[in-house]
Amino acid sequence: MDRAQVISSKIKNDLTLIEETIVKTLVGGEKRLGETALATLKAGGKRLRPALLLIAGQVGSYDLEKLVPAAAAVELIHMASLVHDDILDGAETRRGIPTVNSLWGDQIAVTTGDFLFAHAFVLLAKIGEPRVTDLACSAALALSLGELHQMQTAFKSDQSLNDYLSKIFNKTAILFSASCEIGALLSGASVDEIRRLAEYGENLGMAFQIYDDILDIEGRTDELGKPIGIDLKDGTMTMPIIYALEETGGDTRLCSVIENTAPSEREVDDAIQLILSTNAIERTKREARKYAQLAIDAVKHISSKEAQTDLTAIGKFVVARYN
Amino acid sequence: MDRAQVISSKIKNDLTLIEETIVKTLVGGEKRLGETALATLKAGGKRLRPALLLIAGQVGSYDLEKLVPAAAAVELIHMASLVHDDILDGAETRRGIPTVNSLWGDQIAVTTGDFLFAHAFVLLAKIGEPRVTDLACSAALALSLGELHQMQTAFKSDQSLNDYLSKIFNKTAILFSASCEIGALLSGASVDEIRRLAEYGENLGMAFQIYDDILDIEGRTDELGKPIGIDLKDGTMTMPIIYALEETGGDTRLCSVIENTAPSEREVDDAIQLILSTNAIERTKREARKYAQLAIDAVKHISSKEAQTDLTAIGKFVVARYN
Repeated sequence: MDRAQVISSKIKNDLTLIEETIVKTLVGGEKRLGETALATLKAGGKRLRPALLLIAGQVGSYDLEKLVPAAAAVELIHMASLVHDDILDGAETRRGIPTVNSLWGDQIAVTTGDFLFAHAFVLLAKIGEPRVTDLACSAALALSLGELHQMQTAFKSDQSLNDYLSKIFNKTAILFSASCEIGALLSGASVDEIRRLAEYGENLGMAFQIYDDILDIEGRTDELGKPIGIDLKDGTMTMPIIYALEETGGDTRLCSVIENTAPSEREVDDAIQLILSTNAIERTKREARKYAQLAIDAVKHISSKEAQTDLTAIGKFVVARYN
Repeated sequence: MDRAQVISSKIKNDLTLIEETIVKTLVGGEKRLGETALATLKAGGKRLRPALLLIAGQVGSYDLEKLVPAAAAVELIHMASLVHDDILDGAETRRGIPTVNSLWGDQIAVTTGDFLFAHAFVLLAKIGEPRVTDLACSAALALSLGELHQMQTAFKSDQSLNDYLSKIFNKTAILFSASCEIGALLSGASVDEIRRLAEYGENLGMAFQIYDDILDIEGRTDELGKPIGIDLKDGTMTMPIIYALEETGGDTRLCSVIENTAPSEREVDDAIQLILSTNAIERTKREARKYAQLAIDAVKHISSKEAQTDLTAIGKFVVARYN
């Protein structure tokens, strides 16, 4: 299933405005300085966060003038976090395209991430809605908290499901939730609808990240645009790994792959096969679908049918995609 | 001369509130996650930017409730940029204390910087003054622009004075200016006084950075808390180097140290001696004093005598300090 099939053509059309705004923002000063940041934009992506923001913006009165910079800002925050994450992971490619750190080195990548973050906050500041700025900044803070948490627990196999859920809540769910809440806020939606949209985003983000972690085990490199088994290599405990350990009574080979800071390809492959041989993926998919359903349920009674249709389709999409 | 001698005891007293606010902000969530960021705070610093913000806040009506989080935010932005800069420079110590990257590695340092930036923006968002958020975010953007510019021109000896001035404007002057302007804005100062304070900050920042670049040539490691000659090692062209090249008709040994990505200690020492043998330091000091004087002149007629006294003392201090 492709993102193109799940979002209405109106929103798809407005998403091109986000793309244009980001380009204009990044090359606004000196083209040369925006070059590395633009490479990140050109590397593509699903643009899910700005899409959610625009869709949520239909709940009240759809005000493109405010929604466009806000949607560009949430995507810039996401892009910035990807550029910095790729340094941390030493990632060579993302979506099949070389990363900033692999093209220009870690130093340029650190500053490119800062440049993207700063542009996001400048865009937000210009909207002049303190609550919107607060939501986006808190989401950026949560991203760094989730990342710090992940680094501090890397290569440790004795992590609980709650550790994992709290990490992905910070790393993914909060920005999804903020995107939806900002869209609703800027459209002047009611307090109740704003709350429903935030709840949708939070649950969708959880479903999205859990499904992402499934793809890292059972996905295909050619479809993902990046190698699989990255979490195992990085010593990052995810839900399928936690369940597989549970089902195997703490398989020592699997534990040692997690605890090994440089496992071989063979060891990672074996660990993947081991996980696939258990019921872990099926149980994890069930959890992802549970969160997706909670998201869909949260917007069952919102006033905009258009928004509800798109949000429901996205809820189904995130737990049935290839990448 | 010590900072302690130049700032009035009232402001020094209120600066302790900034320190407390930063600590409370960083350990607010999980103490463990704030640990690396707190290390940066404990490494000390002159706290010049928050001091400027508080002093400027005396021009109108001094409102600590707004000034304290804003002053904490500008210091957090500065701290974040230092943590990221230390990764770029591979710096082992700062102010005589080990850097985050040397203690915990580059990965933790990338995220610690992001964590500090995000906390700054959350604090700013909560103040709820869009113009203040805009100023601080634009300053953060300028920091990354200045850093990108510096990286792209590293190890190139054919740089003009204008290249240098534009770099330090972004890297230092804009955040100094924003700190002063934010203080004045939050105190409800008049448009004219806000402009004067911003002008003061900009010129003070230029003077400060030029003098910093002098200290990197003629300072003493034990006084600076960091080695000297860092700019020469990093291939960063500064005003004393540009003037020394001018005075020696482009000395080839000096050029080759700049262009060398890994010059020996001996080559760096020789380059320092060469610069010291010219009139470059004296000419650069004259420029630094010129900017400091422009700063002092900008606040000659502001309505708060207390602010004027402190700002004038700081103007004199930045071009006569040891570190």
